[in-house]
Amino acid sequence: MIDYSVLNENEISTLAEDLSIEGNENSLYSLSEILDCILQNKINATDELKDKITSNIRDILSKYDKGNIGLAQINPIAGDIEYNAKKVVKYIKCAQDMNLDMIIFPELILMGYPIEDTIERHPIIVEENIKWLKEIAAKTGSTAALVGFIEPRKYNLTTGKSYYNSVAILQDGEIKGIVRKSLLPTYSEFNDYRYIEPSPVVGVQPDSTLCLLDEDNVVDCDKTITINGIKYGISICEDCWNNKDFFDRTLYSKDPIEELAAEKPDVFINCSASPSRAKKEQLKHNMLSFTANAYKTPMVYVNQVGAIDNSSFEGSSRTFSSDGALIARAKSFEEQFLIVNPIYKIGKIYPLTKGLEKTLTEQKVFTLEYENDLERTYKTIIQGIRDYFKKVGFKRAVLGLSGGLDSTVCAVLLADALGKENVFGISMPSKITSDASRSDAEILARNLGINFAEVPIKDMVDTTNMMFKTLFREVEAKWDCRYKQSFTQDNIQARSRAMYLWGVSNEFEKCIPIATSDKSELYMGYATINGDMSGGFAPIADVPKTKLFAFARWLNKNREEKNAIPEAIILKKPGAELAIDPKTGKPLIAEDALMPYEFLDEIIWRIENKHEHYWDLMGATFQYELKHTVSKEQKSQWLDKFYRRMSTALYKWSILPPSVIVESRSINKYDYKQPITSSRINYKGLSREEIRTILDESV
Amino acid sequence: MIDYSVLNENEISTLAEDLSIEGNENSLYSLSEILDCILQNKINATDELKDKITSNIRDILSKYDKGNIGLAQINPIAGDIEYNAKKVVKYIKCAQDMNLDMIIFPELILMGYPIEDTIERHPIIVEENIKWLKEIAAKTGSTAALVGFIEPRKYNLTTGKSYYNSVAILQDGEIKGIVRKSLLPTYSEFNDYRYIEPSPVVGVQPDSTLCLLDEDNVVDCDKTITINGIKYGISICEDCWNNKDFFDRTLYSKDPIEELAAEKPDVFINCSASPSRAKKEQLKHNMLSFTANAYKTPMVYVNQVGAIDNSSFEGSSRTFSSDGALIARAKSFEEQFLIVNPIYKIGKIYPLTKGLEKTLTEQKVFTLEYENDLERTYKTIIQGIRDYFKKVGFKRAVLGLSGGLDSTVCAVLLADALGKENVFGISMPSKITSDASRSDAEILARNLGINFAEVPIKDMVDTTNMMFKTLFREVEAKWDCRYKQSFTQDNIQARSRAMYLWGVSNEFEKCIPIATSDKSELYMGYATINGDMSGGFAPIADVPKTKLFAFARWLNKNREEKNAIPEAIILKKPGAELAIDPKTGKPLIAEDALMPYEFLDEIIWRIENKHEHYWDLMGATFQYELKHTVSKEQKSQWLDKFYRRMSTALYKWSILPPSVIVESRSINKYDYKQPITSSRINYKGLSREEIRTILDESV
Repeated sequence: MIDYSVLNENEISTLAEDLSIEGNENSLYSLSEILDCILQNKINATDELKDKITSNIRDILSKYDKGNIGLAQINPIAGDIEYNAKKVVKYIKCAQDMNLDMIIFPELILMGYPIEDTIERHPIIVEENIKWLKEIAAKTGSTAALVGFIEPRKYNLTTGKSYYNSVAILQDGEIKGIVRKSLLPTYSEFNDYRYIEPSPVVGVQPDSTLCLLDEDNVVDCDKTITINGIKYGISICEDCWNNKDFFDRTLYSKDPIEELAAEKPDVFINCSASPSRAKKEQLKHNMLSFTANAYKTPMVYVNQVGAIDNSSFEGSSRTFSSDGALIARAKSFEEQFLIVNPIYKIGKIYPLTKGLEKTLTEQKVFTLEYENDLERTYKTIIQGIRDYFKKVGFKRAVLGLSGGLDSTVCAVLLADALGKENVFGISMPSKITSDASRSDAEILARNLGINFAEVPIKDMVDTTNMMFKTLFREVEAKWDCRYKQSFTQDNIQARSRAMYLWGVSNEFEKCIPIATSDKSELYMGYATINGDMSGGFAPIADVPKTKLFAFARWLNKNREEKNAIPEAIILKKPGAELAIDPKTGKPLIAEDALMPYEFLDEIIWRIENKHEHYWDLMGATFQYELKHTVSKEQKSQWLDKFYRRMSTALYKWSILPPSVIVESRSINKYDYKQPITSSRINYKGLSREEIRTILDESV
Repeated sequence: MIDYSVLNENEISTLAEDLSIEGNENSLYSLSEILDCILQNKINATDELKDKITSNIRDILSKYDKGNIGLAQINPIAGDIEYNAKKVVKYIKCAQDMNLDMIIFPELILMGYPIEDTIERHPIIVEENIKWLKEIAAKTGSTAALVGFIEPRKYNLTTGKSYYNSVAILQDGEIKGIVRKSLLPTYSEFNDYRYIEPSPVVGVQPDSTLCLLDEDNVVDCDKTITINGIKYGISICEDCWNNKDFFDRTLYSKDPIEELAAEKPDVFINCSASPSRAKKEQLKHNMLSFTANAYKTPMVYVNQVGAIDNSSFEGSSRTFSSDGALIARAKSFEEQFLIVNPIYKIGKIYPLTKGLEKTLTEQKVFTLEYENDLERTYKTIIQGIRDYFKKVGFKRAVLGLSGGLDSTVCAVLLADALGKENVFGISMPSKITSDASRSDAEILARNLGINFAEVPIKDMVDTTNMMFKTLFREVEAKWDCRYKQSFTQDNIQARSRAMYLWGVSNEFEKCIPIATSDKSELYMGYATINGDMSGGFAPIADVPKTKLFAFARWLNKNREEKNAIPEAIILKKPGAELAIDPKTGKPLIAEDALMPYEFLDEIIWRIENKHEHYWDLMGATFQYELKHTVSKEQKSQWLDKFYRRMSTALYKWSILPPSVIVESRSINKYDYKQPITSSRINYKGLSREEIRTILDESV
């Protein structure tokens, strides 16, 4: 792909001229890419140049008399209506300048999705989004704009939730109609039904229910809307995820697309905000393609891009022809103004992240072959970090560099997301830390070009230990329950390091510490509260350890600066270097304290993806077992340890800092809810006979 | 109330005999109270004695030929089906021994409510609850039992969620019928629609939809069920909260009670799990009474007691006669087996927590008159602490005693919830800590009888400062963004203290540290991450500061040991004693750093209860303003500060440890969801004209 941002204004002007003369589809998309650079301020262009490019695009498009549509794949900030609205208006102006029939924004674009309970506690932001919507409407001309907003159910409201999740159709200075979401995802990271009423009516609402907006501002219309002779059937996100022929099982009885199809639209439109997760992109592709083909109706799908808290949205907006063929796909994890024409099948297909095409919807077995998901993983997390920092107002990150895999991968991701100058890696060796770890940390920092310092924690650990002697003596005098063996020493080290990092955060502007825990270790509760689990953000909390190894190699191969991660870091066996193993006299290896990561990660995978239980797992043949002999006793010991540790880790999950959801399931508290007090669940279960005996004995 | 637990077995036996001979309603309830002591193991009684008491009760009840019902208000553990089922069977046996027509358990009693997403990720526990249910059924005789469980929608399932929230009617060794929840609360702490399918049919399900259970185990029946000649209409929790005549606005279009009423039942039954919140008890009373009277049908309501994570359930199960009069109410915050007869209007009304009768459903203005809600607040939190510790498996608590109000109230609550011997208060003075604070902390500990030690943090603070000098010099060499003024010093102290507390937690069995932050300060982000905000549980995170003052006085007056809290602690102005105010040379007072607590708490109250925004608040007359002159400038400064600080506190709310929800609204992350990245919301809003100008300038 050409990098237009290196060209100066004259060069761009000349290039645009040439492209305009060529006037073919290729030139159309080259011009669009230049326009994207301008819209995203990657090129400093005068208004004249921008106008010239839009008019060049208009000229090329003029040969298509109808159906020219802009997909405005943009990145909103939750609740910052002004920011979002200004972006919307900027894109609408371009669309109008190009004389497009329509421009489409993602779901709920004025608020950003999700906005959650905020709208109930602070209803002023709903009033505000209506005001902004009306002013945006006033700015529209012949080009229609689909703009998502929260619609209060104000009039004659005696039953149901207070709001609709709606899309307004704006044109000629007016609100021409409103479409409301019918199916409300309420699972995983989605909580729509907490604050949204499902719309009983699909498509454009009949006039009588348009009670929100000034009556004189609304024009009567059909369930579909016709613009420049094309009849559009509009739906919102989940509304198109309920096809009974595509899914073995659907979540809702109503199928809004089926109802819309009965109105015989020429084109389907779906305004969406669908976050990236493992295995989801291909499912989405197949589902949208199936739907277009099933109804012999082209499908235009516009998705949100950017991250909001724990959810990282992929973009990759698409258009399918009436036979289900993909005719356009926007970039992944980037803002884009993509022009399509579903009638004349005009579009450009930008690549998904590498390998993703190969990942089928369902993965039947656990595998260490993560290759096809690593670029997506990278971009999901990079966007997650970048947007969290930018949207909350942070700029810098400080993290401990231990020379281990977790902090290493975090450092690489932070350098790429925030810029190396904004990352500070601090090596904080204790007496257990090996020289190798220290030098690995330093080499890594040098390779990445991030800031680096080494500040030992010895004095702090010593003082803490000295103080703890007094403290524990005092407590022991009253409490006869001191552990014979404890993790106090391990934790002093981890907490001293966190103390340093939070100190830097307190002392330097816009800087937060990073929690470096990974998913495998969080499942095992193998992380220290107020230690490595503590921070302003947890980049790899949803990445299992075996994937991190593959990821480290991928980073070494695929980043511009090759091999930034020293091979020694990837080769060494993970261990927190917090304690000495009495058996070896060397720092404790995590796999010895827990179990082999490959085995652990397969348990997690099976529980999350196949909902297996103890006996399923005992009966299954693990990938690890194909390579190593594992006795039945050993296996059951590992499983017992897994369930025991997971049960007591629930509390830690509840206080994990914001992180990026990456895998198809996670333990992120905004994605998965389990009562902490449910730690006594019997994951092995009992037979009917055993139950009978217990009950007989209990009365 | 008589304390039967002080009597020995002979005394109880004799007493039971006498009561049996009296044979009136009073004796009935005295015998029931003795039985409760036995069931809760407060009295060590032989099976013979227990059998004798149940037979005494049976004799008294024998004069009522029908309608004798037991309300089994019990405290389940989430997911611990064995624990819950054993309790259920024990109660069923008593009910059978008394020859009751029926015994009723709270909603979802086999799982505990809420069980949340656990059932989707670990479906084995659903299979288990079916096995237990069948074995419990096998143990029933002529006395029917209503037992809540999770019902998988296994057969012919092509659409909808995977589970119903159901109640089984067990009798004569069989499952006689199943009732399913139709209305699924999905707001605040409730997430039913995440994993439960709403039942389209109310009351007892027609046979054809009873697809889960062994066909031969299910008997055909009507929408109502008739037991000993009485026709019962059964519903689950939210199903009875949608009366269109009672509520100005209802959340759902369907009214299950109205549908049930059409079947002309003799008695309504509602199995419930409804947590305690400010202003809720009276609303519940009025709603249930209204419903009974509206349909001229008695209403029997059985509520869960005990706490599950952040939700503390009140119990207070009730029975209303057909004219809406209260004829029975079980104790609050205690397990109870309460016998009622809605036909013959037999029941006993135990008191609500003191003052609660006086709190009307809606409080129109903010007030410092917390008096009527303090006993409820006390019991809600005590139960919350006790059950969290017991159910997760903790026993001891360690907390810092600063001599300030927050840690003081926490210490009192912990002593009462866990036993004073299980609480360790540690005074950790720094150089800023006044002698008065030190001695107040010590006096408090002595008054409470909790364990106490004083361990200064000076050495640790000094070492940290020394290390930080090196650290910050290293960082400053690369980053030109050091704050001129920072909170580093304040936070070192708070974090050193947390380091101590977590050290004790690591070193002593079953011990967790306590986070002492209060609601007012959490709203302002006036709490240190990894410092006072850190712990295994946060008892007062939903109690505003002004209420804490009233609460401290209430504790001094109403606890058995009077005036445990030194007057000086209540009188002194709150301040964290982490920094010196340069203006006064004395420790900084929190109200000077923030704003008057009375003003702050009224903002919070207005936002949470009335959803007011910046201009509403500017226009309102605050209680504080009635007593003090507040200029417009001052008021707007305070409001600006409030919104600025609240916006940046969102992140802190997301990592707050589990706490007890107390007020009608909270910032508990399981109760209220707002994206952290929404920190830029404009809570003041803009006029249409301002919006127009901004949009004009942006394109």
